[in-house]
Amino acid sequence: MKVLIAGIDGYLGWSLARWLTERDDVEVHGVDGLMRREWVEEVGSASAVPIATLPDRAAALERRSGGPIPFWIGDLRDPGFASEVVRAVEPDAVVHLAECPSAPYSMMDPDHCRFVQTNNLLTTMNLMFALVAEGASAHMVKLGTMGEYGTPGVPIPEGSGWLTHEGETAYLPFPRQAGSWYHWSKVHGSNNLSFACRLSGLRVTDVMQGVVFGVYPSDGDDARLDTRCDVDAVFGTVIHRWCAQAVLGAPLTVYGAGGQRRGFIALEDSMRCLQLLLHNPPDAGEYRVVNQLDDVHRLDALVERVAAAARLHGLAAQIEHVPNPRLEEEDHRYDVASDILPSLGYRSRHAMDADLGAILGKLMTTGDRLHALEGVLHPDVSWVGGRRGRPEVVEA
Amino acid sequence: MKVLIAGIDGYLGWSLARWLTERDDVEVHGVDGLMRREWVEEVGSASAVPIATLPDRAAALERRSGGPIPFWIGDLRDPGFASEVVRAVEPDAVVHLAECPSAPYSMMDPDHCRFVQTNNLLTTMNLMFALVAEGASAHMVKLGTMGEYGTPGVPIPEGSGWLTHEGETAYLPFPRQAGSWYHWSKVHGSNNLSFACRLSGLRVTDVMQGVVFGVYPSDGDDARLDTRCDVDAVFGTVIHRWCAQAVLGAPLTVYGAGGQRRGFIALEDSMRCLQLLLHNPPDAGEYRVVNQLDDVHRLDALVERVAAAARLHGLAAQIEHVPNPRLEEEDHRYDVASDILPSLGYRSRHAMDADLGAILGKLMTTGDRLHALEGVLHPDVSWVGGRRGRPEVVEA
Repeated sequence: MKVLIAGIDGYLGWSLARWLTERDDVEVHGVDGLMRREWVEEVGSASAVPIATLPDRAAALERRSGGPIPFWIGDLRDPGFASEVVRAVEPDAVVHLAECPSAPYSMMDPDHCRFVQTNNLLTTMNLMFALVAEGASAHMVKLGTMGEYGTPGVPIPEGSGWLTHEGETAYLPFPRQAGSWYHWSKVHGSNNLSFACRLSGLRVTDVMQGVVFGVYPSDGDDARLDTRCDVDAVFGTVIHRWCAQAVLGAPLTVYGAGGQRRGFIALEDSMRCLQLLLHNPPDAGEYRVVNQLDDVHRLDALVERVAAAARLHGLAAQIEHVPNPRLEEEDHRYDVASDILPSLGYRSRHAMDADLGAILGKLMTTGDRLHALEGVLHPDVSWVGGRRGRPEVVEA
Repeated sequence: MKVLIAGIDGYLGWSLARWLTERDDVEVHGVDGLMRREWVEEVGSASAVPIATLPDRAAALERRSGGPIPFWIGDLRDPGFASEVVRAVEPDAVVHLAECPSAPYSMMDPDHCRFVQTNNLLTTMNLMFALVAEGASAHMVKLGTMGEYGTPGVPIPEGSGWLTHEGETAYLPFPRQAGSWYHWSKVHGSNNLSFACRLSGLRVTDVMQGVVFGVYPSDGDDARLDTRCDVDAVFGTVIHRWCAQAVLGAPLTVYGAGGQRRGFIALEDSMRCLQLLLHNPPDAGEYRVVNQLDDVHRLDALVERVAAAARLHGLAAQIEHVPNPRLEEEDHRYDVASDILPSLGYRSRHAMDADLGAILGKLMTTGDRLHALEGVLHPDVSWVGGRRGRPEVVEA
């Protein structure tokens, strides 16, 4: 199987390139505009784990896997470039990880909203049309987010479900209620892809993924093989940020009351899911939505768990509640269906406490590099006010 | 009240400029990129009713209304331009009619899909951010379409409703199932605006409008005051196209079986609705969805009505079914709530047969101009294949 990873230079993209070449006989091709590195730099941050350039990491992976990892560098907003890559690679599947993945980045100001929405709209559209032009037989795996559903107060199905209105029932797309311009960009993409399947016979798996955490499983690796690990308030996911705060001796900050519930999945399990989905494509014309998450955690409980793991590493982890920079419910129900992946044979193999230990251990080796990031761990992007200063501490 | 009409040069925009200056004491300002004229020309068509240039029609309207009709010409995809206009006008309300309004145009090929979606995304976003920057007090009236809902098989509420899933009920946005890239662009815009209201206190009325038909009510007007009337298969609405076919002695073509049900509203009633909405804005932060339509008609019954009206004008109107270029259900239920406008005092004043007579009468005066459009009345844009030739005739 030939897989084109769009966004191969990112956190998930590079992990998937490793996973598929190290654990499968998949032929991996990559494309990336290297923009993630620019965005993170723009907000004054950097990956806490040092990462090699794309040519260097690809060379290291080639040496390990024994096969070539061809990659293209370019901007997928350009339809000609997207078509050229797809035509040249002739992939059996495209894993689309080439969107800008940050809610706070999209909320910084109108320019960033425009950028994130047009970037994500066009990269998805261009890959989609490129696949259709080549006969629409390839499988497109698109990364969405559980955040597309919001917190609706009723059980969340996988994409669509039986909905009753005024006593009548139909099988319908489940309503989306995203919470940032970024999350809405993912909804726009999901909507467009569902229509493309109906229209062109394209086969799409749209992955509503929970929050991913973890460092790539290490086995005495060449450091050039490392994937990025962002810990800042704009590009870092919450567990990474808490781990970084613990290593730095700073309080672990919880946004608002902490009753928010979210689905989480370990990096390794995310890779396992994507691999399974690639080997089990939907039928031609099918738009398949998969909820890809393991456990749902309340943030105020999860932070205790991270703090406990940190204390095992000799770190004095304090917990602090800060004003929530986001507009979100801070205590709500959250029942999510996730049946498709288990039906394909997926079982989580991660043990969260071990994963937390691995993240903490990795970050403890980063020294001055992590200390340089201390100033960017605090949220300075408010949903209401855009970029602002560090918030005050409030009572928990 | 100071109203900025974005898209003042279009079919609805120009009608609204007339309506508000001739029948209200609203101060009208306009902005337009004049793109509608280019798009229609690009598909080989033109307005069946000759229209004056924007400066000429504005001058004619100024003479009639006695007040100035200031207008700006520019591209609202440019955020700087959008802000400049809003800042200069300081409107109490913006009526956003500046999107590309054609489903077939968006389905021509990937380039047109990209254009329609980015144009509609950015014009909406730029006007929205411009209003927020000025304090978000102005009321934004955005034209959406009933087509955002698709044909879900259950009753359609106004925007949101009580939905039950797995025995639990919540008040949720009603699922959208659009049927073209254009219709999805309207969904993207609705989603973004609903979030902007929550985020910034913006007040928005999102108008899910039915298919509009009609010529502007004439009272011995200066012809420079006429609004456009498109009859072609790309920019014309179905009733206009049928009237044009009748006047040309060509068969009135129905797409597919003809059991499609759609909501319709006469141009004059659409203006009356918009005027009412302008005088009854929602609260700050409220995202109000209004279903703006009068009667729901089955196309196969409606075409008989148009044919009957044509015969009264001495025209030999034949009816022909052609292969449906669209992907749509051709026989389905369609129950639509429309309670908000009546609650504000709206009552339809149109009599469809009189409106059909007015359209036919107007088109019968257009002579060679209409004959030149004969070749563009047949659908040459297929939802599956993009642009193609004239379809074959099939048995009814």
